[in-house]
Amino acid sequence: MKLETAKGVKDIKPEEKILRERVISILKEVFELYGYNPLETPIVERFDVLASKYAGGEEILREIFKLKDQGKRDLALRYDLTVPFSRFVGMNPTLKMPFKRYEIGNVFRDGPLTSSRLRQFYQCDVDVVGTNSMMADAEFIEIANLVFKKLDMKVFVRVNNRKILDDIILRCNVKKNLVDSVILSIDKLDKIDDKGVKDELLEKGVSKTSISRLLKLISIKGTNKQKLDFLKREIGESQGLKEISELMKYSKDFVFDVSLARGLSYYTGTVFEVYLKNSEVKTSVAAGGRYDNMIGNFLGGKREYPAVGISFGLDRIVLAMKKEKFENIVKVYVIPIGIKEKAFEIVEKLRENGINSDIDFNSRSISKNLDYASKLNIPYVIFLGEKELKLKKFKLKDMNSGKECLLDFKELVKKIKN
Amino acid sequence: MKLETAKGVKDIKPEEKILRERVISILKEVFELYGYNPLETPIVERFDVLASKYAGGEEILREIFKLKDQGKRDLALRYDLTVPFSRFVGMNPTLKMPFKRYEIGNVFRDGPLTSSRLRQFYQCDVDVVGTNSMMADAEFIEIANLVFKKLDMKVFVRVNNRKILDDIILRCNVKKNLVDSVILSIDKLDKIDDKGVKDELLEKGVSKTSISRLLKLISIKGTNKQKLDFLKREIGESQGLKEISELMKYSKDFVFDVSLARGLSYYTGTVFEVYLKNSEVKTSVAAGGRYDNMIGNFLGGKREYPAVGISFGLDRIVLAMKKEKFENIVKVYVIPIGIKEKAFEIVEKLRENGINSDIDFNSRSISKNLDYASKLNIPYVIFLGEKELKLKKFKLKDMNSGKECLLDFKELVKKIKN
Repeated sequence: MKLETAKGVKDIKPEEKILRERVISILKEVFELYGYNPLETPIVERFDVLASKYAGGEEILREIFKLKDQGKRDLALRYDLTVPFSRFVGMNPTLKMPFKRYEIGNVFRDGPLTSSRLRQFYQCDVDVVGTNSMMADAEFIEIANLVFKKLDMKVFVRVNNRKILDDIILRCNVKKNLVDSVILSIDKLDKIDDKGVKDELLEKGVSKTSISRLLKLISIKGTNKQKLDFLKREIGESQGLKEISELMKYSKDFVFDVSLARGLSYYTGTVFEVYLKNSEVKTSVAAGGRYDNMIGNFLGGKREYPAVGISFGLDRIVLAMKKEKFENIVKVYVIPIGIKEKAFEIVEKLRENGINSDIDFNSRSISKNLDYASKLNIPYVIFLGEKELKLKKFKLKDMNSGKECLLDFKELVKKIKN
Repeated sequence: MKLETAKGVKDIKPEEKILRERVISILKEVFELYGYNPLETPIVERFDVLASKYAGGEEILREIFKLKDQGKRDLALRYDLTVPFSRFVGMNPTLKMPFKRYEIGNVFRDGPLTSSRLRQFYQCDVDVVGTNSMMADAEFIEIANLVFKKLDMKVFVRVNNRKILDDIILRCNVKKNLVDSVILSIDKLDKIDDKGVKDELLEKGVSKTSISRLLKLISIKGTNKQKLDFLKREIGESQGLKEISELMKYSKDFVFDVSLARGLSYYTGTVFEVYLKNSEVKTSVAAGGRYDNMIGNFLGGKREYPAVGISFGLDRIVLAMKKEKFENIVKVYVIPIGIKEKAFEIVEKLRENGINSDIDFNSRSISKNLDYASKLNIPYVIFLGEKELKLKKFKLKDMNSGKECLLDFKELVKKIKN
């Protein structure tokens, strides 16, 4: 036996797990404020469901973890939460629409081994199915803003609409069959420069005039209102412009960015991406959009399932969080001096008062105990001997300042809780 | 594509997921009160780690889900949280001892398909490694009691010590090589009657005199103290009796039950099982014990890793919870009458006040909206039209009583929050 984890997965140690749990609890709180209920789909799914051509697509299939059960059935580990969500909607035809749900869970992709890409990672998805209303799209912008406000991280939300991009491209006299391919090039504007995109478009057979008009249109500056008015004048009637103008009625907390494409081909309307301000993490920390055809196609195309949602990147968010020193969930560590049973009772009382507490089990020396508390970043230590018990006073040491004070139980609880 | 889940796994719908999350949040709260930090190990592990002979053993190996990654490495889905915990301890030799951690997560067993046994289920484990102190064992009894107190469920905790059972059996003149087998028979006392156990022991070659003395000793009645004193007289010097007597100094919230065996052979000292009072769920809802040799053996036997822990059965606990009607996380549903944008603003304000709120996206009729809110068990509905906006009064309908009242915003928030 080789004592290691499998390649591409890792243990999440307490110091990181505590941070992650803090983020997850904020995500849940905000999702529920907006009326989304929790759902949990299984990690193991039927292979044919995950491999459906309307599911994740070719590229993702290459990274699927396959397995069989004892009945030799073909199974696989889910690679995202959207396909299981679609399956759930299809299997529950009596579900009241709109159906609002969130799911936070592990997904698995057997991709190449790199340091930044794990084979098991979290997705935190919140979606609604069964509405065309821009109110729903607006909710996700509000959700994104509120999550990061609660995390005390400054962000900006970029928003666009795929229909606007389509209309712009068509009205720049690009042939219809080139639209998707042109969008893929535009999607690279963040990574390669204007020149690079121009060259790529030329290569794809788009004319110089078209390219220069296109780049002019998608790089307009100004307020959201100014951009909208400009585009109305330039491209005229457009369902996309109508939608974004409707969206603006409900939310102002975003930047209308006509150059935002988002690669995934299943988006049909609003798309959004959330970026951190002043952070080393330059990639988006949340993203999503409207996908009005995907679930319907997946379920056989007999019924429409307009949907919109956003997914938060837990790993990137945790990476961007200020790395303060490991904050142990334990607030106080009790060192009994001689009187173990009495000390155990006192710790129990601290817990009754809602204080996460620990006690030395192993009758170690004071210096060893202080070393333990210090290594584990426990902020307070209590020394507890016969003398303290008689006086009903407790000697509390603040491990950060090194200061000690003598307090009665009530004062002790108050001090630690602050 | 067949639109179903894999065999033996299931979707956890919002109504059940909400209950489960409530239980999990109480588990976490109590574990942290007792100084246990969260840890998350991966779902996918190396096959050789899970198949180690000091890990789960033959029987569990037959139910292991195997898979390979693209590098053709042999992997498997974890079948419990104890083996990954042991691996983690082994891989982190600088870990400060005692190491207290909890982990709540899915495990997988490819067992026979029955309605009551799922192939993916939760384990909720809390363990400490690195201490022999009975204080630690006592903590788990307190943890179990507090968890169920917070869940408002009445329980009793049965406690025994494997060393006592060993000593009793030996002092009833049973041969040493029969001890483990006799314990397995005793473990059946709950399922088959005295007579059945007697027959089984006779078959195993235990003499009639031994059997009758054995059954007398393990079925003693009385207070914990009375049982302890009785056994001290009957079997004399015993490390197990010393340990349980030490345990009693720290905790009184359990029933000392000399007949409790717990099948798993890796227990070495204290064992405990938690049962519900007045419930249809007759099996244990939490169980555990001391396993001083397992981690050490697993890690090659060079160092001692005394450990003790308890595992909570989430599925059984949820099953036993009073099945009130589905309590939607949404507290209020706003029905806009004409004025969608203003209504959206009001919902946002409710959310700012910490109220989980939802709004009709689809401009449906009032009766359709009431039907939606009622089917989803949302307790309050607000009707919001021009008139209400002008008056700055809101019409709130209590969906349970059917009563309506007109309130200003402050009163509204207060009413819904109660």
